[in-house]
Amino acid sequence: MHLEKILQLEEASICLVNQENYWVYQPLLAEVVSGSIGLTDTVSPIRRLCPRTRLVMREVEQIDLKNRVVTVSPGFRPRITQITYDYLVIALGTITNFYGMPGMLEHARPFKTLADAVSLRNHVIRALEEADFESDPELRRKLLTFVVAGGGLSGVEVIAELNDFVRSVARHYPHVPRNEIRCVLIHSRPRILPEMVEGLALFAEKLLTKRGVEIRLNDRLKAATSEKAILKSGTEIPTKTIVSTGPLALAPVLQNLDCPKDQGRLLGNVHLELQDYEGQVWVIGDCASLKTVSGNSVPPTAQHAIREAKTVAANITAAIRGGNRAAFAFEGLGKLGSLGHHSAIAEIFGIHVSGFLAWLIWRMIYLMKMPGFNRKVLIATDWLMGLLFPPDLVQLKVTGTSGVAEQYFEPGEIVFNQGDLGDSVYVIQEGECEVLREKDGKQEQLAILRTGEYFGEMALLSDASRNATIRARTALRVLLIAKADFNKLRSNVPAFGAVFAALAQERAEDR
Amino acid sequence: MHLEKILQLEEASICLVNQENYWVYQPLLAEVVSGSIGLTDTVSPIRRLCPRTRLVMREVEQIDLKNRVVTVSPGFRPRITQITYDYLVIALGTITNFYGMPGMLEHARPFKTLADAVSLRNHVIRALEEADFESDPELRRKLLTFVVAGGGLSGVEVIAELNDFVRSVARHYPHVPRNEIRCVLIHSRPRILPEMVEGLALFAEKLLTKRGVEIRLNDRLKAATSEKAILKSGTEIPTKTIVSTGPLALAPVLQNLDCPKDQGRLLGNVHLELQDYEGQVWVIGDCASLKTVSGNSVPPTAQHAIREAKTVAANITAAIRGGNRAAFAFEGLGKLGSLGHHSAIAEIFGIHVSGFLAWLIWRMIYLMKMPGFNRKVLIATDWLMGLLFPPDLVQLKVTGTSGVAEQYFEPGEIVFNQGDLGDSVYVIQEGECEVLREKDGKQEQLAILRTGEYFGEMALLSDASRNATIRARTALRVLLIAKADFNKLRSNVPAFGAVFAALAQERAEDR
Repeated sequence: MHLEKILQLEEASICLVNQENYWVYQPLLAEVVSGSIGLTDTVSPIRRLCPRTRLVMREVEQIDLKNRVVTVSPGFRPRITQITYDYLVIALGTITNFYGMPGMLEHARPFKTLADAVSLRNHVIRALEEADFESDPELRRKLLTFVVAGGGLSGVEVIAELNDFVRSVARHYPHVPRNEIRCVLIHSRPRILPEMVEGLALFAEKLLTKRGVEIRLNDRLKAATSEKAILKSGTEIPTKTIVSTGPLALAPVLQNLDCPKDQGRLLGNVHLELQDYEGQVWVIGDCASLKTVSGNSVPPTAQHAIREAKTVAANITAAIRGGNRAAFAFEGLGKLGSLGHHSAIAEIFGIHVSGFLAWLIWRMIYLMKMPGFNRKVLIATDWLMGLLFPPDLVQLKVTGTSGVAEQYFEPGEIVFNQGDLGDSVYVIQEGECEVLREKDGKQEQLAILRTGEYFGEMALLSDASRNATIRARTALRVLLIAKADFNKLRSNVPAFGAVFAALAQERAEDR
Repeated sequence: MHLEKILQLEEASICLVNQENYWVYQPLLAEVVSGSIGLTDTVSPIRRLCPRTRLVMREVEQIDLKNRVVTVSPGFRPRITQITYDYLVIALGTITNFYGMPGMLEHARPFKTLADAVSLRNHVIRALEEADFESDPELRRKLLTFVVAGGGLSGVEVIAELNDFVRSVARHYPHVPRNEIRCVLIHSRPRILPEMVEGLALFAEKLLTKRGVEIRLNDRLKAATSEKAILKSGTEIPTKTIVSTGPLALAPVLQNLDCPKDQGRLLGNVHLELQDYEGQVWVIGDCASLKTVSGNSVPPTAQHAIREAKTVAANITAAIRGGNRAAFAFEGLGKLGSLGHHSAIAEIFGIHVSGFLAWLIWRMIYLMKMPGFNRKVLIATDWLMGLLFPPDLVQLKVTGTSGVAEQYFEPGEIVFNQGDLGDSVYVIQEGECEVLREKDGKQEQLAILRTGEYFGEMALLSDASRNATIRARTALRVLLIAKADFNKLRSNVPAFGAVFAALAQERAEDR
């Protein structure tokens, strides 16, 4: 937007590569979960914001700094596409990184994009629907437990909205016991909100606790399975919903970039330039490690990113036209955090405000900062509707699930029970499990299965229910092939089908 | 809603099985495509509409009329769940049936549910984004061609909204030539809108044509591939977007039901009862073939369905309390169809109206009929915003694609080209294709592959681009395994990997 304003049409052509055709207004993303604002009102179409820019809706696959070429992902046609540049701005943000945390990739949800927010909302509504119909109290409690890991601003906003939403729509679910609803926030330090001053953080802690949020301090999420969250302290929380707002890391395309890094981010100078590529490559936003002219670290917030963009636009113009480069000097105006339900906390010009007044300030500032007049009116309307009407509980089911997935189980966990419907076949990627069968009220161990072995084919091949229970003996990672895909593969790749048919026969004879 | 009103709490417990937790207001579904109304504003949460009803958000898998048991799909846990009943109302509507039309299941989109509407909108936006970036004029024209099959009310509303949307947002896509945009409506009879009188249908035809819609009469969609729509007349329309609003059929669970049927629908009597199950099972809505007391067939429209529900509620009450059964006597009030862009057609009490006045009537009636005060206000607000602001072009990408898919190719069509990226492996389910390689500017045929053979493994196993072109020799149906899934299966099921490794080696030696 700044470049479009400063540069003349004939001076430069501007190209923006982004995997979505919209820009996400991150500060309001948590409100999508509770439906406080409409599903697409927190985002703004880039083509409207930047009419002169050429938008390429693809993913960045590779950056070749030496040859000044960016490679983007294929579109409808499987061809490599490359874009050459004279000047490059890298603003790819961060991704959630679950490296070294077993089961997190499979069972924890990140909260970075609009799709994450919509998918979390749909999952929570499905959990409520199932809890209302479920007769097993243990499973019902799992369905009604919602865990958020990470007590920074982002995690606090998510747990606040989630807690408000679940508790306010619960009255429409007559078979959901109100006292079984648990919303748990896990944070690794002695207090939440490290970004804010202590007084405001304590205010937030007290308020959230009063509204029913359980806060677990000095602990962190260590592993996840489809049935529970496992904390570092050893505590296990049975749940079907785990959201993690961290840890963050560079996108793979930036990890491979040959340039100086600082704490896992790209190191930029005070002109926001990448070393060795001064006047040619700039880094801004969450993917950059930057310092202001006075030597302070620049925090990864929207208000800083906006000013970084302005500085870069000026410096690109200087590189084209000649002239002095600007240095980044913005030190921040304050901090804001929403606690949901007409409450917030704010530090502005050193003044601390909390509660309803802070909430009004929060709403006003973010409404003002939202670019585009349309969007301002839409969000103001959503907020007005929110005051008039109770939250919505429509589950917009548009996600298809991939047929080949991975799952993680902790020792002792059940993969499936004897008598369950056979809905998939499993391949052990790592670990051991035991095959158990109930007979005359007694459970006997039939076999132990190890890495590379298969199970679950019997029920699928004979279209019957599971004839045994499978329980993990060690940490167990499995590949899961859904019934429909298994059947397609089996009938089209005979060698694949033969493996399972032979196995099923062998096992049937063993009995 | 009627049962909740009539029956006392202690008289009956009411249970509703529905695969979504909302009710879809079908008449406004087409508006979701253009974004005239918010993504979820055309649906209403069932728990709000029917607070006393037990909602079970599952799919109906089986109906056992003899034993009065309904089996529903499993939830989070793979268990069979059964619901017993004293009285049953079957209102499962219809599904789009592509039987006997090659490639339709794989490449044509139905338009029945909210998910269909959202998915169509997202696909159209992606096509525009790609067209703006695509340098090949042939592919660009395909991306800019949108085909709707079926010229009934539903098809006409979809093409009208689609045409309005694409043409109005096109100005944000500077590299999309306006004259390459094609919106095509295909209808099998000599005129569109068989539901309406001729004068109004001709008005609609003229208006749509004026707005740039191509209408092809006396023709029908016969087959589809990922590259084109194939009509009965032999005409082929190169396109990436095919929507089909028909033909309709009963859901599989009803096809298997042992009861009298009429033209593929369940036959009900004037009391809306199923034969042999009078006073116990009722059929209403699009899945039922019904006649009024005066012997007229009941058309499958919302206004009739609403009155059928009322009659059934009265008859269930009569069955419980004793008393006379009501007969269905509603003959219809009129017909309404939106043509988008402040225009519509209407037949009300025998009077024919078209244009802006009909549009005002259309909006007012549907707004009045939308149940729930919230929803009325939301839709009215959406419509107001629509008058003030241009349509939105945010693509809400939340769909995951399944890793094992099917594709259909017509004789002569290219599956992939030499030099393309290798993104999947193919298994021939039916048909033949030829392997072609370009060498010194000449194309030579290397081999012919037949049913049961595999191709495309080379590029995946060696992580290179395609070393040959594959072209269909006959009608060709293939199973397609995406790269990520192929690699997971290969490394976990050695027999599966061995098939492709052996094949790749054999083919490499052949050269």
